[in-house]
Amino acid sequence: MSKKLTKREEDYSKWYNELIVKADLAENSGVRGMMVIKPYGYAIWEKMQAELDRMFKETGHENAYFPLLIPKSYFSKEASHVDGFAKECAVVTHYRLKTSDDGKKIVVDESAKLEEELIIRPTSETIIWDSYRKWIQSYRDLPLLINQWANVVRWEMRTRLFLRTAEFLWQEGHTAHETQEEAIEETKQMQRVYADFAENFMAMPVIKGYKTESERFAGALETYTIEALMQDGKALQAGTSHFLGQNFAKAFDVKFTTRKGKQEYVWATSWGVSTRLMGALVMTHSDDQGLVLPPRLAPIQLVIIPIYKNDEQLDAVNTKVDKMIVELRVKGVSVKYDKRTTYKPGWKFAEYELKGVPLRIAIGPRDLENGTVELARRDTLTKEIISQENIAETISSLLDEIQNNLFDKALSFRDNLITKVESFEEFKDVLESKRGFVSAHWDGTTETEEKIKKLTKATIRCIANDAKEEEGACVLTGKISSKRVLFAKAY
Amino acid sequence: MSKKLTKREEDYSKWYNELIVKADLAENSGVRGMMVIKPYGYAIWEKMQAELDRMFKETGHENAYFPLLIPKSYFSKEASHVDGFAKECAVVTHYRLKTSDDGKKIVVDESAKLEEELIIRPTSETIIWDSYRKWIQSYRDLPLLINQWANVVRWEMRTRLFLRTAEFLWQEGHTAHETQEEAIEETKQMQRVYADFAENFMAMPVIKGYKTESERFAGALETYTIEALMQDGKALQAGTSHFLGQNFAKAFDVKFTTRKGKQEYVWATSWGVSTRLMGALVMTHSDDQGLVLPPRLAPIQLVIIPIYKNDEQLDAVNTKVDKMIVELRVKGVSVKYDKRTTYKPGWKFAEYELKGVPLRIAIGPRDLENGTVELARRDTLTKEIISQENIAETISSLLDEIQNNLFDKALSFRDNLITKVESFEEFKDVLESKRGFVSAHWDGTTETEEKIKKLTKATIRCIANDAKEEEGACVLTGKISSKRVLFAKAY
Repeated sequence: MSKKLTKREEDYSKWYNELIVKADLAENSGVRGMMVIKPYGYAIWEKMQAELDRMFKETGHENAYFPLLIPKSYFSKEASHVDGFAKECAVVTHYRLKTSDDGKKIVVDESAKLEEELIIRPTSETIIWDSYRKWIQSYRDLPLLINQWANVVRWEMRTRLFLRTAEFLWQEGHTAHETQEEAIEETKQMQRVYADFAENFMAMPVIKGYKTESERFAGALETYTIEALMQDGKALQAGTSHFLGQNFAKAFDVKFTTRKGKQEYVWATSWGVSTRLMGALVMTHSDDQGLVLPPRLAPIQLVIIPIYKNDEQLDAVNTKVDKMIVELRVKGVSVKYDKRTTYKPGWKFAEYELKGVPLRIAIGPRDLENGTVELARRDTLTKEIISQENIAETISSLLDEIQNNLFDKALSFRDNLITKVESFEEFKDVLESKRGFVSAHWDGTTETEEKIKKLTKATIRCIANDAKEEEGACVLTGKISSKRVLFAKAY
Repeated sequence: MSKKLTKREEDYSKWYNELIVKADLAENSGVRGMMVIKPYGYAIWEKMQAELDRMFKETGHENAYFPLLIPKSYFSKEASHVDGFAKECAVVTHYRLKTSDDGKKIVVDESAKLEEELIIRPTSETIIWDSYRKWIQSYRDLPLLINQWANVVRWEMRTRLFLRTAEFLWQEGHTAHETQEEAIEETKQMQRVYADFAENFMAMPVIKGYKTESERFAGALETYTIEALMQDGKALQAGTSHFLGQNFAKAFDVKFTTRKGKQEYVWATSWGVSTRLMGALVMTHSDDQGLVLPPRLAPIQLVIIPIYKNDEQLDAVNTKVDKMIVELRVKGVSVKYDKRTTYKPGWKFAEYELKGVPLRIAIGPRDLENGTVELARRDTLTKEIISQENIAETISSLLDEIQNNLFDKALSFRDNLITKVESFEEFKDVLESKRGFVSAHWDGTTETEEKIKKLTKATIRCIANDAKEEEGACVLTGKISSKRVLFAKAY
């Protein structure tokens, strides 16, 4: 397979699909809409998981695991939830296969039909709240702060690697609280955790906001979101945190004895991020040469490639590099030394460029003489000759610089693409020509929101947490509005 | 719920079930045969995962992720595999639910029937080898050393928490190699890794051996196993590693260009351990008071409980304990300070005993005066007064001692229950009265193996890797035998 990528300008969508496959992140499987996450892609996901898991634990959460399959009837218990989730889903109806009567095929054994169909979880509120009923009796059992790492299935009709797949990996937090205030504070805290992760690890700036009623999670009273902007000017919802009120507690009859001895329904939240973040990561930083990974999530932060003409030269380089590696590892740099003799240096350069390794060192006989190495940066595609002295410190601080540089670049790109508009003409114009977020007044009705969507394909991504109170007129209807909201076309 | 457990002598099986639930490890869910793994149980599983994952990576493996659902036809491609796995399984037949015509129920939408049924993976050889065909072209792509952490579903009729559940969590390694020798060495290496983990982390002695033909994995040419012995004298298969020959390569047409330029089928292995290990851990060490956890897998290694009559006393204890905790954490001890005022010390003592925390410190005003603490060991149920001086070192070395003690105890128990027998009378007698492993000669035929199973319920757990060549007569048929094999009743 050629390593050459379609350019982003030519066809952004094609560039994305090619890059995911060529950089060995993921590929389609033989099952419609389901992907295989390849080792290199999975290594990035593992790094994401490790950081998020640490952050969840630091905020008092514990992990648990609930069943993959949910009885159909559970979904009906929360009325709005069932509409949102129980429709496009994988339904298990039988529990046995058998050899066909002619002995030639494997067929479903009709005698092994389930009394009640089971749904592969599209999200786990229902099965989890069915357990919480048994776990929660008193205020002493609260707050209950639980997270689950799991696979879920939603039968999406149009799928794209990482961004929208029938099966995806995610974490889902499900918490229960004594009071409404505490539950709302938990919802907001997890939004902050997600934003912190997105900005400080993915180097991806996000807007913290909340959803309009029509974009809320099915069953939620409020949905907080972090919204990012991709290089093609489309927005991407990167994580959501839901305040569920007492909806699930009522649906599953989860009451507790309060400090005053009364029986009350508990207050709930749920929150999640998924392998979709992998797509967001790619579309925030990568370029026409391939992936660009922020150092804090790069499985390999530095690759070292020997330049040599014979075994003697390679031996001399090896000796030097082995020493450097020890120093680098002490500094916590994850380094790979690629001394495979089956591939040429040029091939390796292209390979690690495609795979987004933040730093590359090439070292040959002349470098050994001069006490230097050739250092290449993936983010700027620049090269320089640097001294071998204090190399670990140089690399370590350069990795920090790259991390910051990627964030700053993405931030200035994003900030340039938040445009205030005052009229619907301007709205449409910005959306078509400039793209990005359009900051506009809206009259607060679902009807107007729907109309704008129909006319422009733009949806309200969120109302920013820090949106200022200001008097204005709805961009479509001219009705009064007290806050701007952010519209965009979105993934 | 009372914390009092059924005694092991009274009813081992009941003791086990009660303990799993009362110690908050897991419980049954509303879905038949599927369990909820509670936070305390999941924390132990996470520790197991972390150690195993490290060991897999140290032996060169990478993680990846393959689809949950497998097309029915994939199973038919490897003839013996389909018989072993595609029968009792969860079958997805539809991809949509809808509201019933009367608007009252949620029903399966018959118009959304899949053309080909999808099976929830019972194991992933087929879907993985379908990918490997694309990944492997040349010897340069080999060896391919991949592991997956995943959930799998096998429609078991009789289930027990952790030991046999319809859904369970596991890891499955799937590797591809140039040569038969290399694949066999990989199979043996993973058996060694599993044994190392079982003995050094779970403190559970295991016998390394291989399976007879009838007990092999469906599709394997050789199945290596580690077999442990539970406290009730029943054996438990704790991990298996399979040499698959070229069966899956042929079934999925995975060929590679050899170093000599020829086209050959690759050689395969697969290996796995599951949440079943949680059951094994419980049944190896725990007692009538509750769980006993080896320190290396205990989520909490040391719990500290303050003894006080008033706030002033509690404050003084807090100050002292806070300092101790810093020292302990530096030494890598995972410590929990339970200063909740909502529970009494006696309640806490019972709670952490039930949960198997290896060490417990109680500290009160008199201890502050004397510079001492009261230290209790979970494994021996002994208490002593020790000095606060060098407490971190004392605790740290005591944790090592407990880890070793648990292993030694389990080893001597196990070794006492390996009995050589020479006649079938003796065989039956040992199996009924003494229990454990019965080391006996066997004529090597599946027929005899089946007969013995029918007569005694004992199966051949394995032929030990290090079984000595010795001439003997089959315990049932008297036919010639060159090696003893290990029989036992098993989980």
